[in-house]
Amino acid sequence: MSSEQRAAAVEKETGRIESFSDGVFAVAITLLVFALQVPHLPAGAISVTALGSALLAQWPSYLTFMTSFATILIMWASHHGIFKLVYKADTLFLFANGLLLLLVTVVPFPTSLVAQYLDTPAAALACAVYAGVFVVINLAYNLLWWAAVRERRLLHPAVTPVQVKRLTRHILLGLPLYGLSTLLAFWNPYVSLGLCSCLWLFWAFTFYVGSPSLGSLIGVQDVETASESDA
Amino acid sequence: MSSEQRAAAVEKETGRIESFSDGVFAVAITLLVFALQVPHLPAGAISVTALGSALLAQWPSYLTFMTSFATILIMWASHHGIFKLVYKADTLFLFANGLLLLLVTVVPFPTSLVAQYLDTPAAALACAVYAGVFVVINLAYNLLWWAAVRERRLLHPAVTPVQVKRLTRHILLGLPLYGLSTLLAFWNPYVSLGLCSCLWLFWAFTFYVGSPSLGSLIGVQDVETASESDA
Amino acid sequence: MSSEQRAAAVEKETGRIESFSDGVFAVAITLLVFALQVPHLPAGAISVTALGSALLAQWPSYLTFMTSFATILIMWASHHGIFKLVYKADTLFLFANGLLLLLVTVVPFPTSLVAQYLDTPAAALACAVYAGVFVVINLAYNLLWWAAVRERRLLHPAVTPVQVKRLTRHILLGLPLYGLSTLLAFWNPYVSLGLCSCLWLFWAFTFYVGSPSLGSLIGVQDVETASESDA
Amino acid sequence: MSSEQRAAAVEKETGRIESFSDGVFAVAITLLVFALQVPHLPAGAISVTALGSALLAQWPSYLTFMTSFATILIMWASHHGIFKLVYKADTLFLFANGLLLLLVTVVPFPTSLVAQYLDTPAAALACAVYAGVFVVINLAYNLLWWAAVRERRLLHPAVTPVQVKRLTRHILLGLPLYGLSTLLAFWNPYVSLGLCSCLWLFWAFTFYVGSPSLGSLIGVQDVETASESDA
Repeated sequence: MSSEQRAAAVEKETGRIESFSDGVFAVAITLLVFALQVPHLPAGAISVTALGSALLAQWPSYLTFMTSFATILIMWASHHGIFKLVYKADTLFLFANGLLLLLVTVVPFPTSLVAQYLDTPAAALACAVYAGVFVVINLAYNLLWWAAVRERRLLHPAVTPVQVKRLTRHILLGLPLYGLSTLLAFWNPYVSLGLCSCLWLFWAFTFYVGSPSLGSLIGVQDVETASESDA
Repeated sequence: MSSEQRAAAVEKETGRIESFSDGVFAVAITLLVFALQVPHLPAGAISVTALGSALLAQWPSYLTFMTSFATILIMWASHHGIFKLVYKADTLFLFANGLLLLLVTVVPFPTSLVAQYLDTPAAALACAVYAGVFVVINLAYNLLWWAAVRERRLLHPAVTPVQVKRLTRHILLGLPLYGLSTLLAFWNPYVSLGLCSCLWLFWAFTFYVGSPSLGSLIGVQDVETASESDA
Repeated sequence: MSSEQRAAAVEKETGRIESFSDGVFAVAITLLVFALQVPHLPAGAISVTALGSALLAQWPSYLTFMTSFATILIMWASHHGIFKLVYKADTLFLFANGLLLLLVTVVPFPTSLVAQYLDTPAAALACAVYAGVFVVINLAYNLLWWAAVRERRLLHPAVTPVQVKRLTRHILLGLPLYGLSTLLAFWNPYVSLGLCSCLWLFWAFTFYVGSPSLGSLIGVQDVETASESDA
Repeated sequence: MSSEQRAAAVEKETGRIESFSDGVFAVAITLLVFALQVPHLPAGAISVTALGSALLAQWPSYLTFMTSFATILIMWASHHGIFKLVYKADTLFLFANGLLLLLVTVVPFPTSLVAQYLDTPAAALACAVYAGVFVVINLAYNLLWWAAVRERRLLHPAVTPVQVKRLTRHILLGLPLYGLSTLLAFWNPYVSLGLCSCLWLFWAFTFYVGSPSLGSLIGVQDVETASESDA
């Protein structure tokens, strides 16, 4: 088998791993809906007003559902961005990917936890667990990326050191931010949750918009910048 | 990288986004089954008659299950129809697609809400929420389509202005219809739900049958019209 | 667009519909596991014996889980077998496919129904509903196949009339068998359920083994027969 | 149809079966999260401490969740490894694959069983059932592999007898190990569960790392060994 053939075979292989990962992401993101529970009203007290109040009282569910959904969506894009640069897989990379998938499937659990305890005296802990899970997920991303770049063995040859450095910094940045969010939970759970909600917006913007070259890593780019780079 | 190569790379990229979206649609449509609950009868009162009555009393579940299923299926076809015309993705398009997916995964929630409250005094609100979710979904479709057509930057070059105008009108049409359905809920929940049930039939027919050129957007067409256009 | 190009485009389109359908089948078959409930024992009475009895008492769950799993698996193979012969899709075909998917996602509901009521006085109704769902599914298959073969417009040109006739007969056969199973439920629920359990074995054997040419429709065949047909 | 064409058609067919199987694996692995239940505290007793204790008391859930996740992931890799060597499918192979998928979708059930009963007097039985399911899964793998290799009819021609022997031994090895784990449950449930937790690590290492030629079966290999074999 020539080395090109082997490269092609392995590339197909990471494709298979990526498509399995995509399936897990798609199921996990859809299961988040179970954080939204239909309110149970006592049979004698069912009215439009009562149901309306019960639905409004569930606002923490809606907030965490949206935050978790957006965060998993961004994670999927980042995961995809990393896999685009990788064309070989070794044991550590596969292990890191498995760890990441495990953590992604866990997200519905802290989501339900916050949904249920945000307006109770236990909110601090629920929000700390929620942000804490994202800290661990960030660590898994760092591990995955580190597994890909150590000695540049698994990366596609066209990837430049500048791109590697930028993505490394980009992924590392999440660690202090989600760490801060975890600590803030014990001071004010709403601030912690708010920070988590802002973070996905931040990822979305820095990843896609802020830096064209990072955006292009996952194959999308603003058409203006594309036209410029053509000129 | 030549501009053709870039176009091909980006096309593959929207393919990936579409296949992830397909996964979310497939899971969300299957999770609707949880709106169908096995009735719990008191241990002493289990009989064929009792179970039969309990199953029949759940007719709102069956109706909303079928309506939601058909609506998500039509939404999948429309989503697919839009993606067929698009060969580049920018930030706004990706954001609109993410919003749409979020709303699609939400559908099992109002479905269960109506299933549980349709034959109670709170039916008006449950049905208004149900139709209201479809209003928001329609807005997301309009946003997605608008993101695709503004300045025609993301569209496939072969798409004609007439096709764009027709699809724009087609998608906009849902807004007043689902809006009306939301308002009607407060007058008569059954009429509201009935309108939602009719609307998917309407989409199915206008999308596939009514206008051959729109039908052909998603690659299916009545064979008669196909033969005619060949002649 | 030449007619070959159009054919290719449409073929790819049915591929997309098939892969969405595959996703729905895969999720529906996996959700069946929710028919298996962990028994809840009163806190004071937890012991190996008590848990063992509780697990054994759930045997109807295991039986229906396995039957439903095998039946959905066979349905997936049949669905796949039909799609292999079809290279165009029209509105009726798409509608029949949507109806079929709706019914496939419903299967976890009667499965849980039987699991919960098989050893109660309401078993007759639960089993009749269970078999009745398969009657309706069989009707949907007949509709799908009829939509494909009327005037042979949607079929691949290589399909022979003999193949069509054989598959038509094969699919129709399920109607009296599942109908009988539905009626038998009111005489003896266990016999009804037993017949449903046997039927998937029957499908498996007639589909794959019994008739080589039908087996080959879905691309698998016993290697002996393959070798013979080569000679 | 020439035999090459037939081979290609069949190869595509096993691809379809594999991608359906991948879907089932992806959904089953994600449904494991339902073994993690949000603790329900009595309304008056909600505090950070109470929630913290309740979450910590659920440690068996976390352990079994992680063990089941890792085991299904390894099973997916093994499944994939077997399918890479197979280019024809016959009835027995399809039956064995269906049985395997059935068992994979079952895994969330014993996972929840152990999560709920590990710290109760019924732990022995729960853990025995858990390990017992893996015994049966191992038998299904042996059946699948045996169906593939008997008379070498379904295997890719490039597969050597040494590879077959090694993979046969590798798969058989699980039988005594999970069998031992099942028996150990009645002596000490924690030891049984610990052994199950260790076993997936063992599979991961022997499959990917320990034997390069086996690792290469599923298309991944340590880059050092790859470089050596090039030299």
